[in-house]
Amino acid sequence: MFAQPIANLRRDGDGLVILDQTRLPWRAVERRLATLGDVAEAISAMRVRGAPLIGCTAAFGVAVALASGAGDAVLDHALAVLRATRPTAVNLAWALNRMDVRLRPLSPAVRREAAWAEAEAIRAEDAAMCAAIGAHGLELLRTLRVRDGRALRVMTHCNAGWLATAGMGTALAPVYAACAEGLAVEVFVSETRPRNQGLLTAWELAAAGIEHTLMADNAAGLLLMRGEVDAVIVGADRIAANGDTANKVGTYLKALAAHAAGVPFYVAAPASTFDPKTACGEAIPVEERAADELFFVDGVDGEGCSGRLRLAPEGTRATNPAFDVTPAAFVSGFITERGVFGVGKLAGFLRDVQA
Amino acid sequence: MFAQPIANLRRDGDGLVILDQTRLPWRAVERRLATLGDVAEAISAMRVRGAPLIGCTAAFGVAVALASGAGDAVLDHALAVLRATRPTAVNLAWALNRMDVRLRPLSPAVRREAAWAEAEAIRAEDAAMCAAIGAHGLELLRTLRVRDGRALRVMTHCNAGWLATAGMGTALAPVYAACAEGLAVEVFVSETRPRNQGLLTAWELAAAGIEHTLMADNAAGLLLMRGEVDAVIVGADRIAANGDTANKVGTYLKALAAHAAGVPFYVAAPASTFDPKTACGEAIPVEERAADELFFVDGVDGEGCSGRLRLAPEGTRATNPAFDVTPAAFVSGFITERGVFGVGKLAGFLRDVQA
Repeated sequence: MFAQPIANLRRDGDGLVILDQTRLPWRAVERRLATLGDVAEAISAMRVRGAPLIGCTAAFGVAVALASGAGDAVLDHALAVLRATRPTAVNLAWALNRMDVRLRPLSPAVRREAAWAEAEAIRAEDAAMCAAIGAHGLELLRTLRVRDGRALRVMTHCNAGWLATAGMGTALAPVYAACAEGLAVEVFVSETRPRNQGLLTAWELAAAGIEHTLMADNAAGLLLMRGEVDAVIVGADRIAANGDTANKVGTYLKALAAHAAGVPFYVAAPASTFDPKTACGEAIPVEERAADELFFVDGVDGEGCSGRLRLAPEGTRATNPAFDVTPAAFVSGFITERGVFGVGKLAGFLRDVQA
Repeated sequence: MFAQPIANLRRDGDGLVILDQTRLPWRAVERRLATLGDVAEAISAMRVRGAPLIGCTAAFGVAVALASGAGDAVLDHALAVLRATRPTAVNLAWALNRMDVRLRPLSPAVRREAAWAEAEAIRAEDAAMCAAIGAHGLELLRTLRVRDGRALRVMTHCNAGWLATAGMGTALAPVYAACAEGLAVEVFVSETRPRNQGLLTAWELAAAGIEHTLMADNAAGLLLMRGEVDAVIVGADRIAANGDTANKVGTYLKALAAHAAGVPFYVAAPASTFDPKTACGEAIPVEERAADELFFVDGVDGEGCSGRLRLAPEGTRATNPAFDVTPAAFVSGFITERGVFGVGKLAGFLRDVQA
């Protein structure tokens, strides 16, 4: 069983303690979230991030909110505040709906403890889903294994590892599963501007002792064209009924380049990321985030102290969509906790999930 | 006639004065280059950058070197040192070859002044070529003009404006020409990691009063897919005989996304960027630059003072190719000082140029 090197989300009395991902990869700093407002801020400011972890954190956020009273008004307010934190990831809405369905029929007297229990259940299920994604992904990687004895080279985007989930990750779960089995895997990690979540991936892979190489997002096309990558695996924030996949902005460019190079492109995500109510990619809302994410950059100075610098000249305007949509035609397969399948089998998968 | 807002390269006695582009977009700082070593360092450290400006600077660098003696040994040494500064841009080799051909037959007594004169000639020709590219590109933009009265939206990559040339630029020359004629144009500027030359483009467009929007490199796919861009125009560092185009890393991803969206993708470059001796893209050497370009970032702090922060965790490995290659099939047309043409007319263009 995969154990997270550092807990990224844990209960602490009536509050939560998270690993503040805005301080990574330079410092592993915990942050206590004591109120609903703290939890909402942590999600929208991306102190916790990654679609599965956002869902878990929001579920715990409901429990935190109920500490101040457990009536319907408090529950409604908590659900509304948390639902508004990030618009694209469907896991957030999925987790909050599940909390609503579980808690609504209960009397306020028992709601509070039921909220903690349900949030813990969501978290345990997420960890189990990650492990199952890893197991199915490992079988897939075995079929790709290169013949000349060198390591399998996987390219990923953003961070969809243990930091982004309650378990071993989604896109990185097959990598962790492979390494646990002694299968040699190297990972190409793209920086993932503007928030540089690729640095989180580099950090978590280094912590796990897995070979990896950082690259600019811009370098993906050349590396794929040159035949230096055997497979691309990314996570997802929402997968429409037709297989169009919303994930961190820049994913689509990798899918295009993988397609042009004949390299398989996989999306690893639990069933909760599939959204049968959204027909196609055009219907997925894409979050537009603050221009300051492009204008400023965070890092550490020569003494290791946190710092922030301005990159852009004053008076510049920017557009900053946080996600893009990869058309289903570019997805070689979906790696889920129920198995790996191509878009041709998506409709059947969605029927099974809803049954 | 387009006048550069600030001279980016000028003679100063036996030396050169450049606008140090590593200090932009935060400060317009000039730097004096007194020796061959200074000039070589300025090119390899990208204090001057952009294929055309690199060629001009290298030509002037030969003149600077000859101040210490004008014999064959000094000339040979200068050519060798300057040729080694950047491997991908063909203009560098082109300009140095031209200096060699011009200076070699001359006696040392007259070489020095001939070197200055030839470098000035190269510079004047570059400015004229930029103006011609602008004029031909403007005709092209008129054919693209959108019907509902809104501005034409051009996406570019890296910096191929006046900062990168001795004139009004290559990729941005049609934009400057259009604005001079009152044609409304807006520019989407991609950040261009890891060196952030997109910020130079934002700075130079702001200085010219041209509407522009900065974006992460990763956002190009979504904007093109959404129909928010009417044309992509980029520069080039070397164009092979078959039309495969080396340009700043990330260019290929934009070409793929433009192709998928049915948006025309143009390469603007003078004839000196075409390299008939290189058969195809695979034969173009791609410069691998230092990993520190990914690990560290330069900017200014709250007081406007220059600073540098570390982005990556310690011990990370990186790959940092400075260029990529866009296959000719993705190029809708080449915008040159001799006119605009598709890849089907490239062979004839190369014959004309060599004639």
